[in-house]
This record gives sequence, C-alpha cells and structure tokens, in this order.
Amino acid sequence: MSKRRRVEDNEKESGNEESTNGLVQRQSPEIQLLPAALEHSIFGVQPTNDFVRVVSDFLYMQVGKENVEIEAKLGVLLDKKTRERIRLPVYCETVISPYDDRWMIFESNMTLEQHKSFNNLLNNRFIETKSPSHKGQPVEYKHTYEIDKFYDTKDGRIRVTRDRKTGEIVEGGIVQKVRIADLNIYSPNTKLDYRISVNAEIPKKMPEGPHSFERNKDRLSYTHQIVKVDLTQVKVTDGGSQDLTHELEVEFIDPRILLEEKLKIENRQENRYVEIVEHFLNNIRMLAKNAI
Amino acid sequence: MSKRRRVEDNEKESGNEESTNGLVQRQSPEIQLLPAALEHSIFGVQPTNDFVRVVSDFLYMQVGKENVEIEAKLGVLLDKKTRERIRLPVYCETVISPYDDRWMIFESNMTLEQHKSFNNLLNNRFIETKSPSHKGQPVEYKHTYEIDKFYDTKDGRIRVTRDRKTGEIVEGGIVQKVRIADLNIYSPNTKLDYRISVNAEIPKKMPEGPHSFERNKDRLSYTHQIVKVDLTQVKVTDGGSQDLTHELEVEFIDPRILLEEKLKIENRQENRYVEIVEHFLNNIRMLAKNAI
Repeated sequence: MSKRRRVEDNEKESGNEESTNGLVQRQSPEIQLLPAALEHSIFGVQPTNDFVRVVSDFLYMQVGKENVEIEAKLGVLLDKKTRERIRLPVYCETVISPYDDRWMIFESNMTLEQHKSFNNLLNNRFIETKSPSHKGQPVEYKHTYEIDKFYDTKDGRIRVTRDRKTGEIVEGGIVQKVRIADLNIYSPNTKLDYRISVNAEIPKKMPEGPHSFERNKDRLSYTHQIVKVDLTQVKVTDGGSQDLTHELEVEFIDPRILLEEKLKIENRQENRYVEIVEHFLNNIRMLAKNAI
Repeated sequence: MSKRRRVEDNEKESGNEESTNGLVQRQSPEIQLLPAALEHSIFGVQPTNDFVRVVSDFLYMQVGKENVEIEAKLGVLLDKKTRERIRLPVYCETVISPYDDRWMIFESNMTLEQHKSFNNLLNNRFIETKSPSHKGQPVEYKHTYEIDKFYDTKDGRIRVTRDRKTGEIVEGGIVQKVRIADLNIYSPNTKLDYRISVNAEIPKKMPEGPHSFERNKDRLSYTHQIVKVDLTQVKVTDGGSQDLTHELEVEFIDPRILLEEKLKIENRQENRYVEIVEHFLNNIRMLAKNAI
C-alpha cells in the first residue's frame, strides 16, 4: 500500500495501517449516554432513502398516463445467456439500472411449494385480521376462476377475460395490455427477486375471428387498504401443449390515489406520495422475505 | 417472447403482452380514498430495510471487540485495473459484497473544492444550531493541528500523535491501528461513495528509534450528539516528496453506546440498536448527497 496516496486496499491481512484519526477515542470508564431524542442527523434531517427515491421517481413519471396499472411481481432475474439467476457483487436488495438490464430477463414464476407457502401465509393473515381482537384493517379474500382468450388483431393483441363458471365477460374484460416501463429489483438475501411494472390496459371492443391461445387462471385475491395481492395459478393452452405457472403480484387497487398525491406535489401541497410508495414496497418486500 | 413460459423480456418495444391480470382496474369516476392511517403492509408490519439490516449485522459482529472505532469515510470506489470509479448495473446506493470486492480499492480522498464545500456546509450548520431559535442539539466545533509520526517496529506500525503547537502527545496518542473489517458502499447517484470501517486502536508504549514517515493533519471536527464529523487536510511527508489529501469521515464519539444496545438485544431487552445504525447512516448519506 502506498503511503503517498490515501488509497485503502481491500486486503484485510494488511493489519497495520496509517490512520487519519488523531483524536483517538477516549475509552473512559463512563460510556456516553445515548440521547433520549436522537436527531435524524447532524443536519437535523433524514435523507430520502435512495432506493425509495428511485422507485418514487420511476412511478412519478408513469402514474399520470391513461389506464395505467402498477404492479410488482415476484420472480427471478435470469441471465439471458446462462439462464441462471443473475449474480451481482452486491450485498443487499438493489434496483437494477433500466439502462443496463438488457442482459437479463425476469421470470415471474415460482415453485408449487412456494406458491402453497404464500397461500398459507396469506390465509393465516386473512384469519388473523378477521379476529375480533384485531386492531387494524381486515384483509378481504376472493377466489376467482377466469379464462383469458388472446386475439392477435392488426391493432395488436387483445385479451378477453371471462368468468369460467358463467362464461360472461368480466367488467373491463376486453383490453389491450401495453407495457410502459419496468424496474427490476435484485434481492440477493431472499429466494425471489421482483419487478415493478407499469402497464396500460386499454379498453377495446370485442375482437373478431378466432383467438390464438388461451389461459386459465385460478386466482386468490387478498385485498388490504390500497393494495391487492394476487396469487395465481396459470395454465396456458397453446395448441396441444400446456404449461402451468405460479405467480404472485401486488398491485394498487386504484393507482389514481398515487396520481392524486403526485398532483399535490406539483401544486406544492402537503402530500403522502412517498408514504404510499413505501407502503407498496413494504408489501412486496414482506412477501419476498417470506419466500421459502 | 414465448407464450409458454411466463418470461418477461426487457425489450420495451414489444408493446403487446399477455397479462396475468384478469381483474382489470375498474376506473370508476370516484377515486379510492386514501386511508388516513395507512398500515405498514398487509401484514401490519414493515420489513427491516435490507441495506440497514446488512450494515447492522456487519457492525453487530465487530462492536464488542476491544478498542474498536467505527467510522465511515467519503471517497471513491475505484476499479483496480482501470483506476476509474467502478460501474455496476445498479440504480441506487448499495452495499458491495465483502466476498466480491477484491477487484476494487477505496480512495478516501476528494477535491479541494469538495472539501471547501463541506467546510461551508458544516460551518453553516454549526452557526444555525447556535442560533437562539434553534430547537435541536447544537453542533460543536474544534480546529486541531496535529502531527502523526509513524514508527515501523517489530510488532507492527505504531502511530504517535502530537499537538503541533505544544509538541505534546495527545491523549491516547500512541496506538497501533489494526484494520478489522470494511464494508464498501457504492452510491451511483452521488459524487462520492463511502466505506464503513471498523478498526482497533490498540494503546502502545512510546516506540524507540527513528520514525519512518510523518503526516500533518489540519482538522475541523464537528460533533453532534453521538457522532463526530472530521474534515481533514492531510499532508504526508515521506523523504523529499509531499502529498496532500482531503478527507471526510463520520465516526461514533463512543462506539460503546452501540455495544450497549447490542447487549440489550442479547438479553432480549428493548433496544435502539437499529436507530443508532440509521442515525450513523443518515449522517454519512447526508454528506454524500451534498458532495459537489
């Protein structure tokens, strides 16, 4: 190690090192008292968490667009070449740069065991919040069986969603889904990564002609305050072959509540924009943490 | 894109995409009301921030060791090969894995302009907290001129620190500094990265013989509650050559207050361990954010 440049090497074995600290700690017998009210910092304030800021800014750009939906899905970030989970030299959950993510894909799938475990977790939470002693807001729960049929038209792919029992098209069930933007989150300390997606679901008229493929969805929806957690088993039928996947997504029940707060920011009013983003992140993070 | 596997590609131009969301948002005229009391999540709780958890765990392992000092320094993470700032495909502040950091070095240096700007920032804050209308705790301020002389002995390098004006050895001024562990933080959205270091400063007897090199330190120390921010100009004299560097470090005035909280965790008592770690991080983050 050079003495001239203040370069610190990563070789931990080089034990002896010049220090910049002349004022050595006085290890007096009395330990300093921890102030009862610890201020946020020497500046009295707390910086916005960089992760939260990046996600907030990302959503800020998108939330005003028409027919927008905002969701976060659990899955795995895979290296396109190796098809294995990506590995970065980072030690904690981090947002992948959208300018440097072309080498990876996000697979929104999980094992049947993981799916079952989330099912148990959310069912238990549902029961817990229904107990008379529960102080907070209850979780509501709904089981739906739907079928999506996809039509490839000259204006793009259109999805028609029907209730599998009644055969009727569900409310807002004919849409064209257009991807707007994604933000991938690498989470090396949990079994699953996640992706935050903004899509537009543009209402369409019923398409003509035959559909190209279909998808059966067996879905458990858990709603709580402003989010919905969907645990879905998806069976895709495409000609003779079938494929079964298991998905978990968190979405805003109504993304316009985020838009409302954005408008307050623009009008320099007090707002809860960041609180809502953190609430959304807390949900997907709690679920990622619980992935077995 | 395959319809079979639920793989989502990163090519944003592929606008039409099958959706997993059958329950399309009902864009009813009434926007959902934002609950006055938004719970942390569907589980009622907030996960510990992964970044904070990683730093907390890192310090937890080290804080009980003897004569320990904990500091965070601003600087730049450089690629050993290119000598340029490292670039990772991440979008926010993140902890570098200590198992994958051998390819980088941390240079705890900054430009004279950055140093001056921090000086102004901290002086202004000092004045602000001294105003009679200030509600919080004051910042204290001290200017010291010291000289470190380094002696290479058979037991390792020993540092002797003297007050430059009086020539007297400062309190706790004869030590051997031993590096224990480092955690590097890459901060792509600020001009500077930072490193959290744990060192032991072992008290020693005055070494004999001549010293091998010396270092002049012109230091401004700003103390606030439990931390000290040192802004130091260091002049290293090694034979005929001289080198001038500018450093900023945040350190715990007494790291044993963190140890106290660790012991409470071990005894399953209520504690403020994470609060203290966050306070420490807030300080270095506020400073990193303000780097010009």
